[in-house]
Amino acid sequence: MKKGASEENARTVAKLLVNADLAGHDSHGVYRIPSYVKFIEEGKVNPTAKGVLEVDRESVGLFNGEWGFGQVVATEAMKEAIKKARNYGTSAVGIHNCGHIGRMADYCLMALEKDMIGMTMSNASGWMAPFGGVERIFNPCPFGIGIPSGKQRPFVLDISMSVCAAGRIEVKKARGEKKLPEGWIIDKDGNPSTYIDDFFNGGSILPIGGSVAYKGYGLAFMIDILGGALTGHGCGSSADYRFGNGVFMMAVDISRFTDIDTFKMRMDQVICRVKKSKKAPGVKEIMIPGEPESLEEERRLRDGVLVPDTVWHDISDVASRLGVTTPLPMQA
Amino acid sequence: MKKGASEENARTVAKLLVNADLAGHDSHGVYRIPSYVKFIEEGKVNPTAKGVLEVDRESVGLFNGEWGFGQVVATEAMKEAIKKARNYGTSAVGIHNCGHIGRMADYCLMALEKDMIGMTMSNASGWMAPFGGVERIFNPCPFGIGIPSGKQRPFVLDISMSVCAAGRIEVKKARGEKKLPEGWIIDKDGNPSTYIDDFFNGGSILPIGGSVAYKGYGLAFMIDILGGALTGHGCGSSADYRFGNGVFMMAVDISRFTDIDTFKMRMDQVICRVKKSKKAPGVKEIMIPGEPESLEEERRLRDGVLVPDTVWHDISDVASRLGVTTPLPMQA
Repeated sequence: MKKGASEENARTVAKLLVNADLAGHDSHGVYRIPSYVKFIEEGKVNPTAKGVLEVDRESVGLFNGEWGFGQVVATEAMKEAIKKARNYGTSAVGIHNCGHIGRMADYCLMALEKDMIGMTMSNASGWMAPFGGVERIFNPCPFGIGIPSGKQRPFVLDISMSVCAAGRIEVKKARGEKKLPEGWIIDKDGNPSTYIDDFFNGGSILPIGGSVAYKGYGLAFMIDILGGALTGHGCGSSADYRFGNGVFMMAVDISRFTDIDTFKMRMDQVICRVKKSKKAPGVKEIMIPGEPESLEEERRLRDGVLVPDTVWHDISDVASRLGVTTPLPMQA
Repeated sequence: MKKGASEENARTVAKLLVNADLAGHDSHGVYRIPSYVKFIEEGKVNPTAKGVLEVDRESVGLFNGEWGFGQVVATEAMKEAIKKARNYGTSAVGIHNCGHIGRMADYCLMALEKDMIGMTMSNASGWMAPFGGVERIFNPCPFGIGIPSGKQRPFVLDISMSVCAAGRIEVKKARGEKKLPEGWIIDKDGNPSTYIDDFFNGGSILPIGGSVAYKGYGLAFMIDILGGALTGHGCGSSADYRFGNGVFMMAVDISRFTDIDTFKMRMDQVICRVKKSKKAPGVKEIMIPGEPESLEEERRLRDGVLVPDTVWHDISDVASRLGVTTPLPMQA
């Protein structure tokens, strides 16, 4: 707000950053505050924008995000997707000119809470080579889907199409580590590597799939097209790719297929079937997609979120520079 | 037709089986004819059924396949999905009580030819353990999407969420092989294995992802829900799972987002960018999803489809039993 955000926009961004920390995805949490302030100062993000629905044709919508905060614009876009799915049964809403939207799960959950299936995927600039290639063309291109259940926790899948996030390699480098597990990266010439430096020297992250990595490549490519080519945001591979995320969302109204209680009963059945199935050696519990995040949220709501000293230091620095009072940190 | 199929249904099944052979996916080709005849004789498939649109609510449709041939019912369902997307911009059509639909790509191509994005996914009975588990709960759950381009070949992704198809292991066993590559299967107790016999002794195929196989597991689980729980076909994991495929299709009308020529130009740009990017050592060409099948189709249309002696023998056997004249095989 000190940098011009409306209270509503600031609350939306703050809420989704804290949600990410609660879910255990610290890389998408309050850790981002200093860089978000910098984006405003550099003119990359417009803190007052909420996005404009440029295209509104039956179940299809296209938002111009006007370089607003991704969390703000994507929240508006999913509201529109839900409204359209209520009217037509299904919907697809794209976003171009949009800042970093954070976790896909947050928007999927909005649809889920309305007894709908919500999907969100986004492209961004490239870190990943195509299958058989060596250039950084594709983003890990996250994909999220939320599906409601009855008594069981809902099904919330939120995954990227790469073996690891670039952020995880950066964290390892910052810790002074030299090596990576096998199968994470190739060097700039396309050779498999386990050296962190090879990544920062023009290497690429590998798509998911292992021996069938063409599958992860295909899925990332698909998301790059839906988020970038369909919306006009631009594909991550283009030389003039600017910033932020091109986003593609869908919503499906379950009640048009079948009675919602019947559907939720079916969901509970399949979830219980999976959870009660025989475990592999050393496995304590079989998890449903979204369950680890949901359990972590319960833990952190109870025990608090541990913010590393360096992150707190950076947040406090920005706050004091802008004249915002920060609370004293509690001891862990 | 000798077993009661209408000429139209027989032609649809024959055309899609041959299409699969042309694309190089012999496992979904004419090789299936003897088992399809058996399905009719066992009463599992009704050769006259075309499916009935049971639910028709704006952009959402649900077909009761009435245990018709999957190819016939899924063709009808994609026609409906395209019609609905034309009317509303997007659509979702499910199918329950449906025979084996074959390749996902065939239906995606129908949408693509109408300048739409088409998606098809299907569940079936289980071959794959959940992440951390050992029981065969999930099918490899194929996913297909077709996206039109301009001058370049279209983007047609058609992949399963498992490292390999059960059929590939069966073929290796039939050849007398004993071993599999690492990372394909676990044995009945959940230990990684490279022995073919361990698969047939209650083992499971692994989901895609390698060290992050929870991603492939999550995607297969999602498809099982969309194909099985949303449609009422039943999830592959259920003890009473009957037969065939539960299917979920979507279509998106591109022209509602943007001018179709603009979109196709963007597709050509990203495809060229990827194809012209630097190759890894030993790689001759970077392929776009769908390109290997498209090239194989050109080759086979020119040179013919090689049908193995055993497959031809089985087809001829069924044909002579039913009083159908088969052509003399040509020599390769």
